[in-house]
Amino acid sequence: MRYDCIIIGSGPAGLSAAMNLKIHKKNFLWFGNEKLSDKVEKAERVDNYPGLPAIGGKELQKAFLEHKAQMELEITDKLVSAIYNMGGYYNVMAENEFYETQTILLATGVVAANQYKGEAEFVGRGVSYCATCDGNLYKGKNIAVISTSKRFEHEVKFLAELAQKVYLFPFYKDCEVEGANIEKVTKAPKEIVGGFRVEKILLAQPAGASEVEGSVEAGDPELPVDGLFIMRSSIAPTTLLAGLELEDGHVGVNRRQETNLPGVYAAGDCTGKPYQYAKAVGEGNVAAHSIIEYLGE
Amino acid sequence: MRYDCIIIGSGPAGLSAAMNLKIHKKNFLWFGNEKLSDKVEKAERVDNYPGLPAIGGKELQKAFLEHKAQMELEITDKLVSAIYNMGGYYNVMAENEFYETQTILLATGVVAANQYKGEAEFVGRGVSYCATCDGNLYKGKNIAVISTSKRFEHEVKFLAELAQKVYLFPFYKDCEVEGANIEKVTKAPKEIVGGFRVEKILLAQPAGASEVEGSVEAGDPELPVDGLFIMRSSIAPTTLLAGLELEDGHVGVNRRQETNLPGVYAAGDCTGKPYQYAKAVGEGNVAAHSIIEYLGE
Repeated sequence: MRYDCIIIGSGPAGLSAAMNLKIHKKNFLWFGNEKLSDKVEKAERVDNYPGLPAIGGKELQKAFLEHKAQMELEITDKLVSAIYNMGGYYNVMAENEFYETQTILLATGVVAANQYKGEAEFVGRGVSYCATCDGNLYKGKNIAVISTSKRFEHEVKFLAELAQKVYLFPFYKDCEVEGANIEKVTKAPKEIVGGFRVEKILLAQPAGASEVEGSVEAGDPELPVDGLFIMRSSIAPTTLLAGLELEDGHVGVNRRQETNLPGVYAAGDCTGKPYQYAKAVGEGNVAAHSIIEYLGE
Repeated sequence: MRYDCIIIGSGPAGLSAAMNLKIHKKNFLWFGNEKLSDKVEKAERVDNYPGLPAIGGKELQKAFLEHKAQMELEITDKLVSAIYNMGGYYNVMAENEFYETQTILLATGVVAANQYKGEAEFVGRGVSYCATCDGNLYKGKNIAVISTSKRFEHEVKFLAELAQKVYLFPFYKDCEVEGANIEKVTKAPKEIVGGFRVEKILLAQPAGASEVEGSVEAGDPELPVDGLFIMRSSIAPTTLLAGLELEDGHVGVNRRQETNLPGVYAAGDCTGKPYQYAKAVGEGNVAAHSIIEYLGE
């Protein structure tokens, strides 16, 4: 089955788009978070969302959630790790499954995570964001895994079954992954280096950093690896989808929210400043209408 | 005194912009309607304004009015009839007064009024929208006045004091303007014709149309005039401001809501489809942020 549209992201832009696709009876899938947006929830007070004066972040999130419920909008809570351009349609990979779609709306928000030095350079040459996609390339090899959330533990286990050795950077509390070939590292990665492919990860050397049992010895400046998997909740759109053009570090769009790729649209913070809820709902609305028009052609 | 910004229009785009200019402590004037927007009020139901599920037009208007009151935003209920580009700043004329401003935000909505045949052709060569601006050019001459609202009656009287003869088309109920040199016409204008300047107005000939006393005789196909004043509540932005570029009949803007004129921005329905409240508040927000940046330079 091919969807009319897949929306990636459940902030105000994704929500606004989903409403309009639903009203126009489009067959779409909406990847995101059941809670919609952490950023909205954490806002102290929003003064400039017209119609909801001086509203707290929690209340605004509640209003959005009620609207979502009232319109019976469904969110698929899976992480999208890659999008493939099939020439005329797209294949979206989310947690080991492929979803075919005619159009894509990127509403992924601002990617706040800083990239590691060397990360962008080695994508596809040792740096990967998708265990399912690339795990088999590292059978019997040494890899490192940077994981930012408990939800990635099953992917780490999957990788540990394939690789000879896994250096794990668990950047969250209460990491429960264990294994004979898994070594937890508490130092932070500083740089990814290599020749044509990744060869090693240089580590930061914080003064007086404590070490967990079984970790790399203090003073060890680098880890020799064949590959590095980086597991983040939000992936930069250009990493998700090859060939997507940026403008000033954001997804480049025109007034219709069209990107440079046919059938691919973007809305909200990922298209640039001002990072504002009003802008996001506006762009989500416009993107949905552009998508509806594109599908009708 | 020169304002930082003058907003023209009090629909959702103007409201959203006003909020952001106020938050950023800009010195601005907001021309519009105390009721904000007739269009919002008349909406039957709005399903896709995120955060306010399935809201009626009256309730949405109430929410906007409450937000306006909560932020102590002031509306100046005057009609803007012309904007003059002074090279570096602008002069806005509203009901016989001039207001100087650094920047302009056009948030005038969709101009639904159809233009008369010949109207665009003869602007500045006999067709005028501003009695105060151009009345003196018609001293002792014959003019026609098309008026769409009672609020223009003082302007019609002003013109009647100057002109030798006024043919008045009162397109509203209970016209109370009287005068020895005022002749009310009940036929509709069909076309404005002339050479370099306006010479006459051709009249429509509805079958069985009734005539008011003192009006032009039935069968009289045209009125010889030196000029025509058209008094409408909403004036097309290009008519307000010479040199403004259009795209597909709407004000041309880029992603920052900048028009082709420096310091002039546009937002909401006047910039094109989709005609949606979410889009309007988004564009008003973006325009305000662009204006704030422009003022800071």
